[in-house]
Amino acid sequence: MVARSAARTLPSFWIDRYRAVRRATEALVAPLSPEDCQVQSMPDVSPAKWHLAHTSWFFETFLLRPHLPGYALFDPDFERLFNSYYNGIGTPYPRAERGLLTRPPLSAVKEYRKHVDRSMAQFLLGGDEKYSEIIELGLQHEEQHQELMLMDIQHVLSCNPADPVYCVDGPRADPVEGDPEWLTFLPAALAEIGHGGDGFAFDNESPRHRAWIEVFEIADRLVCAGDYLQFMADGGYQRPEYWLADGWDRVQAEGWTAPLYWQEENGRWTRFSLRGRMAIDSDEPVLHISHYEADAYARWAGARLPTEVEWEIAAGSGRLRQRDDSAWQWTASPYVGYPGYRPLPGAVGEYNGKFMSNQMVLRGGSLATPPGHARLTYRNFFPPHARWMFSGIRLAR
Amino acid sequence: MVARSAARTLPSFWIDRYRAVRRATEALVAPLSPEDCQVQSMPDVSPAKWHLAHTSWFFETFLLRPHLPGYALFDPDFERLFNSYYNGIGTPYPRAERGLLTRPPLSAVKEYRKHVDRSMAQFLLGGDEKYSEIIELGLQHEEQHQELMLMDIQHVLSCNPADPVYCVDGPRADPVEGDPEWLTFLPAALAEIGHGGDGFAFDNESPRHRAWIEVFEIADRLVCAGDYLQFMADGGYQRPEYWLADGWDRVQAEGWTAPLYWQEENGRWTRFSLRGRMAIDSDEPVLHISHYEADAYARWAGARLPTEVEWEIAAGSGRLRQRDDSAWQWTASPYVGYPGYRPLPGAVGEYNGKFMSNQMVLRGGSLATPPGHARLTYRNFFPPHARWMFSGIRLAR
Amino acid sequence: MVARSAARTLPSFWIDRYRAVRRATEALVAPLSPEDCQVQSMPDVSPAKWHLAHTSWFFETFLLRPHLPGYALFDPDFERLFNSYYNGIGTPYPRAERGLLTRPPLSAVKEYRKHVDRSMAQFLLGGDEKYSEIIELGLQHEEQHQELMLMDIQHVLSCNPADPVYCVDGPRADPVEGDPEWLTFLPAALAEIGHGGDGFAFDNESPRHRAWIEVFEIADRLVCAGDYLQFMADGGYQRPEYWLADGWDRVQAEGWTAPLYWQEENGRWTRFSLRGRMAIDSDEPVLHISHYEADAYARWAGARLPTEVEWEIAAGSGRLRQRDDSAWQWTASPYVGYPGYRPLPGAVGEYNGKFMSNQMVLRGGSLATPPGHARLTYRNFFPPHARWMFSGIRLAR
Amino acid sequence: MVARSAARTLPSFWIDRYRAVRRATEALVAPLSPEDCQVQSMPDVSPAKWHLAHTSWFFETFLLRPHLPGYALFDPDFERLFNSYYNGIGTPYPRAERGLLTRPPLSAVKEYRKHVDRSMAQFLLGGDEKYSEIIELGLQHEEQHQELMLMDIQHVLSCNPADPVYCVDGPRADPVEGDPEWLTFLPAALAEIGHGGDGFAFDNESPRHRAWIEVFEIADRLVCAGDYLQFMADGGYQRPEYWLADGWDRVQAEGWTAPLYWQEENGRWTRFSLRGRMAIDSDEPVLHISHYEADAYARWAGARLPTEVEWEIAAGSGRLRQRDDSAWQWTASPYVGYPGYRPLPGAVGEYNGKFMSNQMVLRGGSLATPPGHARLTYRNFFPPHARWMFSGIRLAR
Repeated sequence: MVARSAARTLPSFWIDRYRAVRRATEALVAPLSPEDCQVQSMPDVSPAKWHLAHTSWFFETFLLRPHLPGYALFDPDFERLFNSYYNGIGTPYPRAERGLLTRPPLSAVKEYRKHVDRSMAQFLLGGDEKYSEIIELGLQHEEQHQELMLMDIQHVLSCNPADPVYCVDGPRADPVEGDPEWLTFLPAALAEIGHGGDGFAFDNESPRHRAWIEVFEIADRLVCAGDYLQFMADGGYQRPEYWLADGWDRVQAEGWTAPLYWQEENGRWTRFSLRGRMAIDSDEPVLHISHYEADAYARWAGARLPTEVEWEIAAGSGRLRQRDDSAWQWTASPYVGYPGYRPLPGAVGEYNGKFMSNQMVLRGGSLATPPGHARLTYRNFFPPHARWMFSGIRLAR
Repeated sequence: MVARSAARTLPSFWIDRYRAVRRATEALVAPLSPEDCQVQSMPDVSPAKWHLAHTSWFFETFLLRPHLPGYALFDPDFERLFNSYYNGIGTPYPRAERGLLTRPPLSAVKEYRKHVDRSMAQFLLGGDEKYSEIIELGLQHEEQHQELMLMDIQHVLSCNPADPVYCVDGPRADPVEGDPEWLTFLPAALAEIGHGGDGFAFDNESPRHRAWIEVFEIADRLVCAGDYLQFMADGGYQRPEYWLADGWDRVQAEGWTAPLYWQEENGRWTRFSLRGRMAIDSDEPVLHISHYEADAYARWAGARLPTEVEWEIAAGSGRLRQRDDSAWQWTASPYVGYPGYRPLPGAVGEYNGKFMSNQMVLRGGSLATPPGHARLTYRNFFPPHARWMFSGIRLAR
Repeated sequence: MVARSAARTLPSFWIDRYRAVRRATEALVAPLSPEDCQVQSMPDVSPAKWHLAHTSWFFETFLLRPHLPGYALFDPDFERLFNSYYNGIGTPYPRAERGLLTRPPLSAVKEYRKHVDRSMAQFLLGGDEKYSEIIELGLQHEEQHQELMLMDIQHVLSCNPADPVYCVDGPRADPVEGDPEWLTFLPAALAEIGHGGDGFAFDNESPRHRAWIEVFEIADRLVCAGDYLQFMADGGYQRPEYWLADGWDRVQAEGWTAPLYWQEENGRWTRFSLRGRMAIDSDEPVLHISHYEADAYARWAGARLPTEVEWEIAAGSGRLRQRDDSAWQWTASPYVGYPGYRPLPGAVGEYNGKFMSNQMVLRGGSLATPPGHARLTYRNFFPPHARWMFSGIRLAR
Repeated sequence: MVARSAARTLPSFWIDRYRAVRRATEALVAPLSPEDCQVQSMPDVSPAKWHLAHTSWFFETFLLRPHLPGYALFDPDFERLFNSYYNGIGTPYPRAERGLLTRPPLSAVKEYRKHVDRSMAQFLLGGDEKYSEIIELGLQHEEQHQELMLMDIQHVLSCNPADPVYCVDGPRADPVEGDPEWLTFLPAALAEIGHGGDGFAFDNESPRHRAWIEVFEIADRLVCAGDYLQFMADGGYQRPEYWLADGWDRVQAEGWTAPLYWQEENGRWTRFSLRGRMAIDSDEPVLHISHYEADAYARWAGARLPTEVEWEIAAGSGRLRQRDDSAWQWTASPYVGYPGYRPLPGAVGEYNGKFMSNQMVLRGGSLATPPGHARLTYRNFFPPHARWMFSGIRLAR
């Protein structure tokens, strides 16, 4: 009789980590009604109910179904309904119509989560260690959706003229006083950026690679609301010379005169937030800014946005304030693959690669990013006109 | 001491009638979740929650607020949120965004209904008899919304690929067997149509007036699904010669090949209904037909649609089958005011008059019309391309 | 041996009549460059070049090709290119893309006209008398396009900020001084309207039929610019209570504040016309008015628009001023077929019937209508929002 | 008496160079009618007449008006009408409405050109040498418009179902036989790209700068139609795995199944060109390709597009075939400013910089590029979905 060498099983810490991430997601919807979780206020937004289901679908599709023997699907229709964009898994339900699905109700989606959690508990107890990577990907994926949920909930609630409050102590960025300090990085050098070590990173952070970088300066803090009000007062939204042509078209077509969620009444500006409508605090970082606005502000200020290479070098130096807890920072870098970039094999390879067009990279992290989720090499990305993210500005020159 | 002649108070039957109508509305949402009641699946549709609130708003706005001393508004924001289209009351909340209002939740709207009901109970007990007309208008208005709710719920549920069932014994039109009989009306004569007697009627049914009518024939039953399948089999949707130019444009642009909610699989046609997806029964009246389709079918059949004068004369004769319990019947008459038409005074005058353009009159009543609501003189109206109503075809020639 | 009775040939007056109509068309483009004749400034507009070709296509398609032995097509591609909307003749070239056809150039289209004219001269000399009706239809059709050409040319030139002049003595409506007189028609009676006699009329004017008509009053002159300026000064375009709902939506969506082609500078109103930009003359009839505006004006003035039955009875009395030489007069009547209406047989049956939806009838004639073209029974029709016609207002009550 | 040092005047070669460029532009419209020169077939296209005027406007605005004493404007309206996008010069006439301007006619625009040419002749004879740069910019600008004119004319003519010929011996790319050879560039190194020497270059080609470049291979010839047909035959347009997400959306929304201008009949593919409709020649470079298609093709072929750094290094080696005479070559590089990029001062600074978003860089030159216009450092750019340029594919890996 011949013994096969035993496969190693998953280490036990996964159980706690899995539970913590899943509970954090559920905590986000605790203040919300079934109605709040149902609505899709624009095509970019997904209903909170959909986020709850899709993050479970991810574990079901990429782990339980292929790798847990005897796993019973909670509902076969969910394969299509809660597929976001993986053509490799079948034809996804149309993105812009997610808000039309009144069934399953929120209660059933919560049951779906429990079903997946029970099966995952079983899987994590005895599963092969080789699945660690896809488990980690599922958890990182769910953390990304935690921030998306907050963005989307804020947008949904903002459509209500009564300015409803999501949570009185919802996330908020700390104010910073005083002028920014300009940090200088020299000399010009061959730098290395990107993920290269052990821990987890998304495929778009790799490979670690060399890039030539000239001398630059970068501000040690973010642009605050008070700074931005000066840009506005100086006619920032009325003067085409500060704007990219596409940005100026957008300003005209959509009548932009301030960041998203800002309103003016009798000369006083307020902003809608997860805590409801609030007075502008001059020392808070400006939020809900498009790339076009960030770029125009920088030009007005006689500066520019940093490239992502500059950002990563500067952030790695440990000298930046508000690095990843306040606002994602628009860079001057379009979102493309790093030299030698390869997507993951299989359907999960659609995760990042196919979105590498018409988007700009943001770096850092925000008040809504789950603690521990962001990394120095993390690459967030959105189209240059998007504003419903927790996005802000760090200047370079 | 001089006694003022006592005003007469409202008769007691209003209490029962009011309660019955209100309870009927609430029964319609009993099978629905908060999510089902939230969604607006196209701009023409309103969420069921909105219907529940708006019908209460009507009593609050036109009766309680002006005429019940000491009445306390349930929520001052509701004046705007649940105003449908009465510019005389203020600027209504945008129609196409009704589905974005997650607050108030369904539960609060139900509380709002109770609040209005309690105050109405008080009002009906001691109110002046002169308010009878506006009470009746409020109840008729709510009955209209009962049918709209069923139309809207069916549309919302139809967006779900799982074909959910609203109610297993939801309303259904009875089948009728056999060929239609052609009823002849002669000689040409000066007819009278429109509302002229006592009971309630909407302003658009008045005044009763004279109209010259030539000899005509009309079918004693509606066009059934079997008839309509022959039109389809004969290339009805592919042959422009049967269609009005606007109708043909719509066929091309939206790819119509069958009535709304119909689907074909392996040569078998089904239709989505309030009972879920069902096989087509040849003897049932065809439903969810636009005016363009009704008109094209009639031309194909060598017939035409009746005018509303013809319909009213024929229906008054007592010889029509499926008069008002199966499907609203498209007429050849555009929706305009009768000679001498005057809207009601005040904001309630916006009820009907301002919609007298780009719409066609439907007569009769449908499987979803509340019992007792329809009248011989009743004028329903929709744009010629609309299909989500319970609309069908009665031929004339 | 039996002699068959010889067919009668066409009378000779056709030759002069044909030539006169064709020359009149060509005179209209005499002041225009090839560029002016090329452009389609909105989907409703056709290039003047297209009008020149399409009116020739009509004779080629319905007379020369089927009935002139040995007729050689000028260019086989023209069958499709210059078919307006006759599905019975094949698939027409898309209406909205007429302005994209740079070939054939204007010069070739003029050659096409000569080719058709030569063949028509041959046909008119020896053709069978039975073709009189289709010849007359072709000429009436071309006269309709003469007015359309002026409408379209004015619209094209209006897009040029330099306000170019079509013709310094272009058509103009005479001013009328003094208040309108209200003419009374009584008693209520069974009237007859529609075409019933010999001479030419379009199919939509038939059959002559009976209609009951109540007592009414009608203004003996049109609403003039001075009247309309009062409506504007009284907030006509800002007060929803005067407007049909669809009209009010249009006012908001398109920012209407005055008739089409009107502009205000320093409190002085001007209008763009075929003579270039001109000061408003208070006594001229208001022009370039939509049905929505006409209806709103009438409601503001405490009056209404006449029905087409009323208009025809009043016009037949000989008591109306500005009957058919100033502006088409919007009626309250949607455009539908008269009782017993039948389109012509064959493809030419698409001439009028298939447009009987979503349009309103205008009666009379305008400054741009060819002399002799309009008739008492003539039914013009446009969608209620259209404004580029020479349309105005006559009040009734 | 003190002599001021005399300013140097412009060298005489400018006179010939100016005339040659202007004549070349006029030669391009020689085969065209006024109608051909009038039409704008989509918002991206400008009428040929507009190109003729705008290139003259450039000299008038940036040279004659500010720097030729006594210069008389040809027509003051032209300042606005023929301003393309320079907000610094005033509000440009709306781009999408250029085709609506029938006045001035083509003949007047030709007069305008002569007027400008006469004044430029005067200017070039005695002008200060310091204006050399702006003269050169004006001529380079006009050469750019020469290629744009050919692109636009081809698009206009393509809208005509008769497939009209622009010119029987219009520009055409030479076929190349045989498989491509892969050229290898090593080792990884610090490269320099961008314009740094004397001669003319656009601002976006500067500054010359360092960039790190890894080892790469690049094909010595372009992808030919035969190669591309294999991609199509292998389901290239039906398989989402090859496409960027935005590209796949575009394929679906616009029904792409082949390059722009290609048509299939009975299994035979043809393409519309400046020579009319022609059979596909397998050995010709594929043309009229979007970035999305180029990227999908490369992925299908197991390769990728080169970055612009790689392209410039490879092209500088002298080893590339079809470098700049066949088709512009899509790169993998989004269009952004080089490190240290500064736009020109004044309104002319809007030339390139404000377009640095949502576009991809193309390198090389095409069959329609004026001889001598392209440079090794030349950066062309278009949005990734655009296809009406003479664009093709060179692979890297």
